[in-house]
Amino acid sequence: MQPDADPRARRGPGGVTLRDVAERAGVSLATASRVLNGSSRVVGPDLAARVGRAAAELRYAANGPAQALARATTNVAGLVVHEVDDPYFASIAAGAMRVATGHGLLTMMASTSRDAGREVEYVQRFQAQRVRAVLLAGSGRIDEGDELGRALADFADGGGRVALVSEHDLPFDTVLPANRRGAASVARLLRDLGHREVGVLTGPRELRTVADRLGGFLDGWEQLGGDRGAPVVVEADFSRAGGHAATLSLFARAPRVTAVFALNDLMAVGALNALQADLGRRVPDDVSVVGFDDLWFTGDLQPALTTVRLPLEDMGARAMELVLSPPAADPRRVPVPAELIVRGSTGSARPPA
Amino acid sequence: MQPDADPRARRGPGGVTLRDVAERAGVSLATASRVLNGSSRVVGPDLAARVGRAAAELRYAANGPAQALARATTNVAGLVVHEVDDPYFASIAAGAMRVATGHGLLTMMASTSRDAGREVEYVQRFQAQRVRAVLLAGSGRIDEGDELGRALADFADGGGRVALVSEHDLPFDTVLPANRRGAASVARLLRDLGHREVGVLTGPRELRTVADRLGGFLDGWEQLGGDRGAPVVVEADFSRAGGHAATLSLFARAPRVTAVFALNDLMAVGALNALQADLGRRVPDDVSVVGFDDLWFTGDLQPALTTVRLPLEDMGARAMELVLSPPAADPRRVPVPAELIVRGSTGSARPPA
Repeated sequence: MQPDADPRARRGPGGVTLRDVAERAGVSLATASRVLNGSSRVVGPDLAARVGRAAAELRYAANGPAQALARATTNVAGLVVHEVDDPYFASIAAGAMRVATGHGLLTMMASTSRDAGREVEYVQRFQAQRVRAVLLAGSGRIDEGDELGRALADFADGGGRVALVSEHDLPFDTVLPANRRGAASVARLLRDLGHREVGVLTGPRELRTVADRLGGFLDGWEQLGGDRGAPVVVEADFSRAGGHAATLSLFARAPRVTAVFALNDLMAVGALNALQADLGRRVPDDVSVVGFDDLWFTGDLQPALTTVRLPLEDMGARAMELVLSPPAADPRRVPVPAELIVRGSTGSARPPA
Repeated sequence: MQPDADPRARRGPGGVTLRDVAERAGVSLATASRVLNGSSRVVGPDLAARVGRAAAELRYAANGPAQALARATTNVAGLVVHEVDDPYFASIAAGAMRVATGHGLLTMMASTSRDAGREVEYVQRFQAQRVRAVLLAGSGRIDEGDELGRALADFADGGGRVALVSEHDLPFDTVLPANRRGAASVARLLRDLGHREVGVLTGPRELRTVADRLGGFLDGWEQLGGDRGAPVVVEADFSRAGGHAATLSLFARAPRVTAVFALNDLMAVGALNALQADLGRRVPDDVSVVGFDDLWFTGDLQPALTTVRLPLEDMGARAMELVLSPPAADPRRVPVPAELIVRGSTGSARPPA
């Protein structure tokens, strides 16, 4: 899979190879590699000391740390997500791990809790651990700055492989869900059901995923023509609690709304709860609710949620396949379709009272 | 937090300290440490080579690998779970990460996909990465073997810290949810509601969590006396699909069952779906359903799920606090309560037809 990753072929600046070190230490090549290149198998301290001594005597060790930092040699893939307890990322991670396991790789996952700075920190940490590949599963940010791009480029320069899930404006292989098109299909559904006053619950607008879904919906709504009102947009956290709060604030501002489009399923769950438990509205009789992602439990909700399905596990699997396949000359872009799934949470618009 | 973890205080067998290396290389102590002890901050190859050379000249490098393997020195905590896309583990992980972040630690998470062998592999991988602590969040197994215990002991011998969530029969600090007591409270609830024929859906019985919850329920049911039937127990995967399949097989064997206790919420979600969509039974009018864990969305299900709440985030947080506090002479056991949450999925037993 990585024809250039064989440590036996490497020579340090002094021309000393790992084989030389192994011979001097009187150990197998595998043992020398475990000590000097890192491995999931642990070597006893005596053997490790012998290898370390041989490496130092041959001056191999002098180049060791720099070499270790510069090259990806372990059987580990690193995965960076935004939230560990968001099922969107959990499903992507499950798909990625399935493929990694099939190729004999371990996967280490890191969650940034949506702190952009920590994304860079984890990429550098993975680099220091000499992982073979890094997958970034979180959405890009509109104003990304270039620190993340630099960290990834640095990792790739040393032979590491990078793949992204969702748009990032970075020159790496990317798996691209059809966020705009999926959101436009929601605009058509709500128009067809006769809704005229609609609300949109968005996560933070600096996320590209939010911008794409919001743009796709607003453009779709406008292009459908007619004299429907402009959607009322409320921004909050991309979470159940965010969807709950945004729904209360939406209906305080626009009580005549008959349909709510939440830009992810977590927000839609919060909307269902706010409408039914706090505002005493029936779903879908009084208000229709639509989500996005099709998390695995959305069909079990009260009522079952109409949403846009993304093949989340498959997205993670394809990203992992990209980093395990030979690199392409130019970054690859793998489109992934979005499919509208109509369930019980949407219905015809209530006629005006 | 870790008074013995300061690399500046360490001397290799030759008496050479990191400070000696830094002085010889003409770099700061921090830079020398980043190169030789691993760090999330990456050092340029020139500096790294200078540090490496100085270390080799002083023979510090000769002890470096063994020392690195033997001591936990990075600002990383490792977390091993059974399934990355099971919200039970996601919530525990979120709590653990919150505490780690508050202490300036990064967290790397690994999922074994319930493969016991991979648990050992990840512990060894974390050790090779010189993480400071390892948390095992998955349930122990009845027949654990001693490979996992040896791997953890090896890590701890080198100064690494270990904490477990759920019973494992291993001599490390453990956070212990009240699985038996929680399950016994379900037996009382179902008795009080007049149920006489009940079914239990279990995950794999080699998991201690399953054994504890099943034992707590069966003992509680028996101790309540009366002439109620023995519960019908069906084993399947500890997942939504497992709960769905187990419910179909339960009702094929025992069609007069009026209450189903699923040993985790995932199985309960599958039971709700099988009962309502496949078997045409009303919940709770025809059949009551109870879960265990209180995953964050169980109140949003159709109907809202009666379950036993464990403070999952808090369990993860407490496990991380254990490894960040000074070690105790003997392993600590931190009990965590379980609380019955009664919602819409349970009701009085249907009178016999």
